[in-house]
Amino acid sequence: MTTLEDARALDVTDPLGPMRERFALADGVIYLDGNSLGPLPRQTIDRQHDAVTRQWGEDLIRSWNDNDWIGAPQRIGSKIAALIGAKPHEVVVTDSVSVNLFKLIVAAVATQPDRRQIFFLNVNLTTDIYTAGGAAGVLADHIVQTEQADDLADALGPDSALLMLTHVHYKTGARHNMEVLTEKAHDAGALALWDLSHSVGAIPVDLNGCGVDLAVGCGYKYLNGGPGAPAFLYVHEDLQDGLRSPLSGWMGHEAPFEFRDDYAPAPGISRFLCGTPPVLSLLALESGVELFGDTDMAQIATKSAALFDLFADWMDERCENHGLTLVTPRDPARRGSHISYTHPDGWPIIQALIERGVIGDFRAPDILRFGLTPLYTSHEDVWQAVDILGEILDDEIWREPRFSQAKAVT
Amino acid sequence: MTTLEDARALDVTDPLGPMRERFALADGVIYLDGNSLGPLPRQTIDRQHDAVTRQWGEDLIRSWNDNDWIGAPQRIGSKIAALIGAKPHEVVVTDSVSVNLFKLIVAAVATQPDRRQIFFLNVNLTTDIYTAGGAAGVLADHIVQTEQADDLADALGPDSALLMLTHVHYKTGARHNMEVLTEKAHDAGALALWDLSHSVGAIPVDLNGCGVDLAVGCGYKYLNGGPGAPAFLYVHEDLQDGLRSPLSGWMGHEAPFEFRDDYAPAPGISRFLCGTPPVLSLLALESGVELFGDTDMAQIATKSAALFDLFADWMDERCENHGLTLVTPRDPARRGSHISYTHPDGWPIIQALIERGVIGDFRAPDILRFGLTPLYTSHEDVWQAVDILGEILDDEIWREPRFSQAKAVT
Repeated sequence: MTTLEDARALDVTDPLGPMRERFALADGVIYLDGNSLGPLPRQTIDRQHDAVTRQWGEDLIRSWNDNDWIGAPQRIGSKIAALIGAKPHEVVVTDSVSVNLFKLIVAAVATQPDRRQIFFLNVNLTTDIYTAGGAAGVLADHIVQTEQADDLADALGPDSALLMLTHVHYKTGARHNMEVLTEKAHDAGALALWDLSHSVGAIPVDLNGCGVDLAVGCGYKYLNGGPGAPAFLYVHEDLQDGLRSPLSGWMGHEAPFEFRDDYAPAPGISRFLCGTPPVLSLLALESGVELFGDTDMAQIATKSAALFDLFADWMDERCENHGLTLVTPRDPARRGSHISYTHPDGWPIIQALIERGVIGDFRAPDILRFGLTPLYTSHEDVWQAVDILGEILDDEIWREPRFSQAKAVT
Repeated sequence: MTTLEDARALDVTDPLGPMRERFALADGVIYLDGNSLGPLPRQTIDRQHDAVTRQWGEDLIRSWNDNDWIGAPQRIGSKIAALIGAKPHEVVVTDSVSVNLFKLIVAAVATQPDRRQIFFLNVNLTTDIYTAGGAAGVLADHIVQTEQADDLADALGPDSALLMLTHVHYKTGARHNMEVLTEKAHDAGALALWDLSHSVGAIPVDLNGCGVDLAVGCGYKYLNGGPGAPAFLYVHEDLQDGLRSPLSGWMGHEAPFEFRDDYAPAPGISRFLCGTPPVLSLLALESGVELFGDTDMAQIATKSAALFDLFADWMDERCENHGLTLVTPRDPARRGSHISYTHPDGWPIIQALIERGVIGDFRAPDILRFGLTPLYTSHEDVWQAVDILGEILDDEIWREPRFSQAKAVT
């Protein structure tokens, strides 16, 4: 039997335990939805106030220089690079994941003119599939094709231009093998583009070590950058000057302040910028990313695995015979940092949990999803969450009509 | 002779005078750069604090419903619609001007398959030209062609798909005749797309009255939405369901929370959304836009014209024989709300002005630009700014070496 004391004992020796105090999480809330929206870092309150009142209010237009707003996309990008095995000049913060995917898909395919330019997708975020479809709609003669990972070696061939993959699946939490699949793409002469939205900040990522060509990722999940925080993109240094973004806005120009009529892309990663960035959201992201400077990804990965094992083991004991099925792989190398179960009544069960202060989320049609975020989730949180879920299931509290009525949102 | 007392007398009867107190502008600063970055509305300080600490910090993921983050792009869009002669459901806030232009160009051209699909551009923002070039690069067989307004009637023809125009020119302040040029486009069977970045919130715009098909605009200039605030786009209601954005992200899906694999665009204006919006920047924009609810555009236009006349007349008296040439049309119907002069030493002159607390800006190669923003610029501000410029020119203060050394930014 896994006891509350066991969980508390793990918290005592947790090197990341003190990080919890860096977040403004209310007492009585067990927040297991950081994989959807990371919570507010305490330091972000003052930093955002400074961004609004001093940088914008007092320094006004001069802030582009004096507070280096102009350098923020590259500056924050270099901090994210340290979390994903990239060089500082290989990452830039800009736009949304969807917009960045579009840029990289169109730019990458243009470098493969001798190929029939088929995209191979695997189980991806739906927005990735939507974006790829939109890009293919613009690029005549391109086909978006979906394959399963196991069939990839057979499917990839001389016509393949680009392999797009989501590192960690947003529903199941299953993780693809970045090194192996990138190599398969390269063996076929295709480029590899990875979506890190559900892995950056949660598990170790080694883009350079795996030879990854292109990547995108989300700022508002594990990076705790605030709601809808700008996204980032990565382009391997060897590819940067050979790629042209189809979204050629003024911030990606080699000399944006010369206001010339002709477009010349900036050298390096800056050419993937487009319009003026949303500075307030950008600076909130920087604050979130900087918290990682006081940790290391190995500690984070170790705790992620420990939280997962505690959750899964305690679920086996506490919630057995209630119809919940674990859909996340148990092998730490094959998963991210959230754990998912299926249950036909997943929606009302999650609503009942939220009423009890345990915030997980639901993904249609039947997935209960719990983010296990090493920076601020304690082992006791995990134990209590499972125990409360057990009570809700034992007493069939979720069958109360009000839990079926609420509306779903992200 | 225009005297300080004349200017003060105009302030006494100015119905917009009390609006000045709604902005957090420091004493001693005459801010004539609101056409580049609008200043901070006082109410935005508390509202942004609430967005950070309560909405994000306490309500967390529930804010998508409970604080209607999910409806913000349409809600703020409908408030902007009231300023530009559009229906509430014809405007949505999303992405940047550059990204929105790309969406609309590609979507519009696809509806004109029987045309050689030439874009006609006129004197536009450089980012508009860059974006059109990027779109043409993606769309095979499309040509971006630049014409002068006077030649448009001859240039537009049966091959024309789209006319793109900037309503007010970012350098000269010259305004195109929206009604006449839109009609010329329509006469040729082309669609008309207007960039309102330098007119929205500064002068009256009547998109519906002029029969405009498509428009984009900026949130961080006259709308005072904060640095890099999200942009907006307008699509005439009759065109919405016939256009498809090439940037098909999940927020533009008809059922974004069903996470289906197939993409089906939302009905109406929402289909032009793409990824998750930067909520903190979005809510700052909403605060700025709401200030306009206590004014009306006729008042704003009247004061804009009065500030312009005062500036131009007083310049003629105070700064004559100093080599400054007015490049903005004097006719109120032919200009926006900023006034521009050329001078071969424009850069050091602007730097000297900034040191004296008069914040205008410089645009290469030789433009001195002053935003005359009716919500917070007083007639006395205008008088003092011109007088200080006169002193700098009389005493040749701008020749001091330090004014030539600073670096240029936006």
